[in-house]
Amino acid sequence: MDRATIKALVQEVVQNTLHVSTKQVPIAVSNRHVHLSPEHVERLFGRGHELKKQKDLSQPNQFAAKETVTLIGPKGRIPNVRVLGPARGKTQVEISLFDGYGLGVTPPIRQSGDLAGSESITIMGPRGQIKVEESLICASRHIHMHPDDGERFGVKAGDMVDIKVDGPRGITYSNVLIRVSPKYKLEMHIDLDEANAANIKNGQLGEIIAIRCSPEKEGGCGCVCKGNG
Amino acid sequence: MDRATIKALVQEVVQNTLHVSTKQVPIAVSNRHVHLSPEHVERLFGRGHELKKQKDLSQPNQFAAKETVTLIGPKGRIPNVRVLGPARGKTQVEISLFDGYGLGVTPPIRQSGDLAGSESITIMGPRGQIKVEESLICASRHIHMHPDDGERFGVKAGDMVDIKVDGPRGITYSNVLIRVSPKYKLEMHIDLDEANAANIKNGQLGEIIAIRCSPEKEGGCGCVCKGNG
Repeated sequence: MDRATIKALVQEVVQNTLHVSTKQVPIAVSNRHVHLSPEHVERLFGRGHELKKQKDLSQPNQFAAKETVTLIGPKGRIPNVRVLGPARGKTQVEISLFDGYGLGVTPPIRQSGDLAGSESITIMGPRGQIKVEESLICASRHIHMHPDDGERFGVKAGDMVDIKVDGPRGITYSNVLIRVSPKYKLEMHIDLDEANAANIKNGQLGEIIAIRCSPEKEGGCGCVCKGNG
Repeated sequence: MDRATIKALVQEVVQNTLHVSTKQVPIAVSNRHVHLSPEHVERLFGRGHELKKQKDLSQPNQFAAKETVTLIGPKGRIPNVRVLGPARGKTQVEISLFDGYGLGVTPPIRQSGDLAGSESITIMGPRGQIKVEESLICASRHIHMHPDDGERFGVKAGDMVDIKVDGPRGITYSNVLIRVSPKYKLEMHIDLDEANAANIKNGQLGEIIAIRCSPEKEGGCGCVCKGNG
């Protein structure tokens, strides 16, 4: 076997091992925020109240509302927490681990919607105050993408990827969940702690450098995703 | 060339490329804190005052003092910020990027002692208040180690390494500076943002998975260290 053949062989092994690629994803930083059920909108802001749009968010139909609330925990409170709209089925409060210290609560790190057994938190609005059980999480990092992006990147819903961000405070985030929907726009979501750790600004690019787990791969994957092998 | 030889060749290339190793380092999380010059100790706590030890820190002769101060920035203040002792040449205040938002200042990310052109901050104690120019930084991550550790790991002062931390919120920190002294105990120092991003608790282990730059390596290194090639 000649040098060129061996070099090509080595390159193939390295690329297959590392899933080397130039798969870039814009990053959006999520500060603490609240999603409210229609019932809770009324209890916090008054009978018949509807959330008013302040500005559109990057994901279609989602918006930052003009309304804000105060979060109250056993050790402290955080005022001026933005409500996102539109109102949806279940109230969900997303904070960082740092926010949790001040409030005196430890939010579990969960994907959006995975609220069973999560923390409770008190929410105060101009017209009322409610304690909401199983509503408080620290959002687990994830990437929204359109099925076309998934095809281009060779990933699908439920896959976990490693995302590398360059710079003086460069970081590689492991275990980033891929979420796919025709309604999604390509974007990685991280919280403020995760953004500060790499000094990331909104819109900065990360790169998929490894695909760690896929439901269609055989055998165990050693990662933390649920039900994906 | 036979299969076994090619496999060994591939393995060597992969290991040399990735600097695969099992080099573990305990991690210590630094919350915001203040180092004070002897002069500033007196201006904040009174003539002739000496810092009182509350507890020893892991690095030899360093201690958390009983004294705390309030940091005051253009947009807000942070009370109960721990003073570390003993008093030393120049006053240095270390906060996270998150802390900076509340204070209304953007600390540059710097190694300890690299204060030229850094931010100014006002420090308030029980006996006085001082504005200290070029004193405020966000500490850049680094690893303290004894020369014996350096030899064992194959790294030396000024090298930059990548540190991988496992777990559901696993992260790899790039550009971690190696600092070597016979006085140092092996320990990686990160700030609270960096710790929260990976949900790290004090004492957790990280692993050196790559050595990115060394003063003795030829050619450019592509990393951000100063004067190391």
